[in-house]
Amino acid sequence: MRISEGRNVLIFYQHGKTWLTKVSNANKLHTHLGVINFKDIIGLEFGSKYVTNKDKTVYLLEPTIYDFIIKSERKTQIVYPKDLGFIAARTGLKNGCKVIEIGTGSAALTTFFASIVKPEGHIFTFDINEEFMKIARKNLEKAGLQDFVTMHLHDLYQGLEIVDADIAVIDLGDPWNVLEIVHKSLKLSGSVVAICPTVNQIEKTAIQMRKGGFTDIEAIEIITRNIEAREGMTRPSMRMIGHTTYLIFARKVLE
Amino acid sequence: MRISEGRNVLIFYQHGKTWLTKVSNANKLHTHLGVINFKDIIGLEFGSKYVTNKDKTVYLLEPTIYDFIIKSERKTQIVYPKDLGFIAARTGLKNGCKVIEIGTGSAALTTFFASIVKPEGHIFTFDINEEFMKIARKNLEKAGLQDFVTMHLHDLYQGLEIVDADIAVIDLGDPWNVLEIVHKSLKLSGSVVAICPTVNQIEKTAIQMRKGGFTDIEAIEIITRNIEAREGMTRPSMRMIGHTTYLIFARKVLE
Amino acid sequence: MRISEGRNVLIFYQHGKTWLTKVSNANKLHTHLGVINFKDIIGLEFGSKYVTNKDKTVYLLEPTIYDFIIKSERKTQIVYPKDLGFIAARTGLKNGCKVIEIGTGSAALTTFFASIVKPEGHIFTFDINEEFMKIARKNLEKAGLQDFVTMHLHDLYQGLEIVDADIAVIDLGDPWNVLEIVHKSLKLSGSVVAICPTVNQIEKTAIQMRKGGFTDIEAIEIITRNIEAREGMTRPSMRMIGHTTYLIFARKVLE
Amino acid sequence: MRISEGRNVLIFYQHGKTWLTKVSNANKLHTHLGVINFKDIIGLEFGSKYVTNKDKTVYLLEPTIYDFIIKSERKTQIVYPKDLGFIAARTGLKNGCKVIEIGTGSAALTTFFASIVKPEGHIFTFDINEEFMKIARKNLEKAGLQDFVTMHLHDLYQGLEIVDADIAVIDLGDPWNVLEIVHKSLKLSGSVVAICPTVNQIEKTAIQMRKGGFTDIEAIEIITRNIEAREGMTRPSMRMIGHTTYLIFARKVLE
Repeated sequence: MRISEGRNVLIFYQHGKTWLTKVSNANKLHTHLGVINFKDIIGLEFGSKYVTNKDKTVYLLEPTIYDFIIKSERKTQIVYPKDLGFIAARTGLKNGCKVIEIGTGSAALTTFFASIVKPEGHIFTFDINEEFMKIARKNLEKAGLQDFVTMHLHDLYQGLEIVDADIAVIDLGDPWNVLEIVHKSLKLSGSVVAICPTVNQIEKTAIQMRKGGFTDIEAIEIITRNIEAREGMTRPSMRMIGHTTYLIFARKVLE
Repeated sequence: MRISEGRNVLIFYQHGKTWLTKVSNANKLHTHLGVINFKDIIGLEFGSKYVTNKDKTVYLLEPTIYDFIIKSERKTQIVYPKDLGFIAARTGLKNGCKVIEIGTGSAALTTFFASIVKPEGHIFTFDINEEFMKIARKNLEKAGLQDFVTMHLHDLYQGLEIVDADIAVIDLGDPWNVLEIVHKSLKLSGSVVAICPTVNQIEKTAIQMRKGGFTDIEAIEIITRNIEAREGMTRPSMRMIGHTTYLIFARKVLE
Repeated sequence: MRISEGRNVLIFYQHGKTWLTKVSNANKLHTHLGVINFKDIIGLEFGSKYVTNKDKTVYLLEPTIYDFIIKSERKTQIVYPKDLGFIAARTGLKNGCKVIEIGTGSAALTTFFASIVKPEGHIFTFDINEEFMKIARKNLEKAGLQDFVTMHLHDLYQGLEIVDADIAVIDLGDPWNVLEIVHKSLKLSGSVVAICPTVNQIEKTAIQMRKGGFTDIEAIEIITRNIEAREGMTRPSMRMIGHTTYLIFARKVLE
Repeated sequence: MRISEGRNVLIFYQHGKTWLTKVSNANKLHTHLGVINFKDIIGLEFGSKYVTNKDKTVYLLEPTIYDFIIKSERKTQIVYPKDLGFIAARTGLKNGCKVIEIGTGSAALTTFFASIVKPEGHIFTFDINEEFMKIARKNLEKAGLQDFVTMHLHDLYQGLEIVDADIAVIDLGDPWNVLEIVHKSLKLSGSVVAICPTVNQIEKTAIQMRKGGFTDIEAIEIITRNIEAREGMTRPSMRMIGHTTYLIFARKVLE
C-alpha cells in the first residue's frame, strides 16, 4: 500500500525512537535525526526506507493498533499492551462482544478492544473527567475507531443503563465500590476484570468479589522481559519495567 | 441465556477443576465431585449453580474462547493465553486481519485469532502432521470457528501461495529457515512473530531477521504470576509456571 | 578427605534425590535406587562414585552448610538459601558479628549465620515453641555449630537482655510488634531484617519502621529461576517456586 | 561507637544518594545537598543525624561490607549483592574456607568472601589486568581485608599452584576453558561457580562440566524486585534491574 496525503505513518528509527504522524504534502517533521520531508515520502510504499538530511535511515511503517496505543496522547497512565493482551485472552474477548469500560483514561484499552469487537460489537466507556474524555476521543479518532465506542461523561455511581454486557473492565481507584453496579450490567456468566496497580486494591476487590455474585476469581500479574538476542551473547535486557499493574478477573453467577 | 440441548457448558468447580462438555438430555457427567445430570441443567440460565449428588456446588458457565483453548484436545504443547494475548496486542491483531500461521499444532492460537478477525478476516494455517490437523479441526469446530480458518496440510518449504498477509505466526522448531518464505507472503510493513521455547531459537531467528527484510525486531518473554489475594495475608502463589516460550517479533520492510 | 565412621555424607543422585546421613560400619541405607552399604564406603574419598545393588550411580559428597540446611529436619517453613544469602549480603554479615534472631524455627538461618560468624561471633536466637527448639538444636548439632549459638526459650515481649548486636533478624508473624524491643538490642547503625511472607506484613513493618529509629528501609523480594542449559536447547525450567517471602531491611539510627 | 579521625563513614540521605568517605578534621564534603563539615561529625555516635547547611538531614552510618561493595571504585561490572549472597549460600561458604577466584575485577566478591572466611580462611585471587588489580587492592584496603587475600597477577592458563580449595569462583568470559585447571585446584567434593552474563556462556560451561569431573550442576538466575511498601498503596517498584548475570554451580567428583 502506498503512503497518501493525510495518512498516518509510523516513522521508525529504533525502539523508543519512533514518530506517529499524519503526512501532508505541505509539511515536514523536524527531529534530532534530521528532517523528514513529507513531500518526498508521499507515493512511497509503506515499509520503505527514507534517509534524512542527517544521513539517518528510518522506515516508513503502516501503523498498527499497537502503534496508535504506544504513541497515544495521554494525561493518565495507560494500560500497557502486555496487560491489554492478557485481558483479551483471559476474558475471551472476540469479534462482536459488548463491553463496558469504567474509567476511559486515555482510551488505550478502548482502542484495542474496539479494534477487535467491531463492527457489530461495541464499547461503552465511562469517565467523569472531561479533559481525559477529550483526549480519549482524539486518540480513538486518530485510530479510526470512534464509531464503535460510545463515551459517557457520567458518574457511574448513579448506575449504568447498559445490560447484558459480555465483558466489563474496571479501571479506577476503588473497583470494589463499583462491583455491584457492574454486576447488574453484565450478562450471566460474563467476565469482569479490574485493573489494580496496588496489592491493596486487589485484596479489597477479591474480598468484595467473594461476597457473592462471582466465581472463577483470579488475580494475576503480567511481567514482560526483553531479551537481547545477539550471536553468542544473548541475555535478558539490563533494564526492565518492574511493574505496571495487577489484574483481577471473575465471572458473574446467579446466587 | 438458557442452556439448551447440544450447547457447550463449562462446569466450574475451581481453577483446574473444570469440565467443558456438550450437554444432551440423554447424558450425565461422572466426576469425582459427583454426577451432573444434564437433564437437570438444560433450561437453566448460564451462570446458575448446580449441586451434585455428592453435595458439591459447581457453576454452569457459558464457555469463552479462553475456555475452549484451555480445555482443547491436544497432542502438542499449546500456546498459552499469556502469549496469545501479547501476540495479539503486539502485532496489532484486529477484526478483518488476514493471518498466516505456520504450525497449526492443536489450534489454540488459530482459535483465538479466528475469534478476533472473523467474519471478514481469515486465518490460513499450515501443518505437515495429519494427526495434529484432525485434532485442530475438532477444536475449531467445537468453538464454531472453522469457517474462518483454511487448513493446509502442506510442506511450506515448497512455498506459500498467500500474499499480502497482515500478520504471520511461526510456530515450528526452526523459524529461521522459513523466514524467507514467510516474508514473501506478508504485506509490506506486516508483522511476523516466531514462537521459540529456547534461547537458541530466538538467537538464530534474530540473526536471520537482521540479515534483511525486517525491522522493529523485539524478543520478549511473558511471565505470569498468580496472586493469592486474601484479607491480611496477600502474597504471590508458591507455585508458578517458570517458562513456556519466548516470542520474537519483526515487521517486513523494503530493502 | 576420606569418609570415616560417624561422618555425615551427602549421597547425591540428582537434584531432589539426595540423602544426608551419618555413616556407620554397622548400617545400610535402603532407598528406591537400591541399597547403600556403609561398610563399603567408609575409607573412600569424599567425591567418589558408588554403584548401588540396583546399578544406580550416586556420588558421596562432603556435605556443605547448604546441604545441612536443605536436608534439615523441620516442622516450620525454612528460610531458603536465596533469602539467606541475600540477608547476609545486604546486612553485611561477616566473621565476628553478634546477631540476634527472633524466631528460631528449624534453625536454617541460625545454621548459615553461625557458620559465618564463628568462632568469635555469636548468634542469640529466641523462640517460644519448645518443640521447634528441640529440632533446631538437633539441626545445629548435626552441622556442628551448637557452640556458636545460644538458644533462648523465651517470650521476647518481655524484653531482650542482649545489647549492641550488629544484626537482628525477625522471623515471626508480627514483626512490627517487636521492632521496638529489637531496636534496643541493636548497636547504633546496626541492621535489622524482617522475613515477611505476605505483603500485608511488609506494609505494616515498613510503616512501623518509618515511625522512627530507623533509616535505609528497603523491602525486596528475591526470585530464583533455574535454567536448563543444554546444547542448542537452553531455556528456563518450566516449573519454578513462585514465592517464598519478602524481606524488609533497615538500620538503627539516633533520632 | 563514636566517629573518630580517619574512620570511614557512610553518609546516608536516601537510596542511591549516599557517600562513603574517610573523615578527617581538616576536610569537608561538598554535595548537592550542602556541605558536610567533618570537624562537626567527629565525636558523634555512628547512627547520628546531621543537618547540612542546605537544611538537608543525613545519617552518619557505620559502613558495612555491603556499603564498601556498593560504593567501591570500579572499572568493571561488579558482582551484585544478590548474586554474592546466593553464591555464598549455595556453595556453603563459611568461616575458614579456602577460596580461589579467577577474575578479581574490582574485588566485590573478594571483599565479601574475605569478610566471611577470615581470619583462618583465605582468598587466592587471579587477574591478568594490572589496572584492575590496583583498584581491587584499594577496595580491599578500604574495607580492611587485604590480609586475607592473596592477589596474583597471573595468567592462569599456565596453571594454578593452589590445591585443596573448598570453593572456586570463575568470573571471566570463557569459564569452560579454565574448568580443567580449576578442577585440579579444588578439593574433592569442593564447589565451583561460574559467573556468566549470557546464556551462551552457561550453555558452554554446562556442556564442559558434564564432560566429567563434576556433579550437582545447577544453572540459576537471581532476580530482585523492590517493593514500595506504603500504607494502602503497596506495589512493586516501577523500575527494576532486568538482569545482571546467570550463575552455574557444580561439585568436583572422582570419575
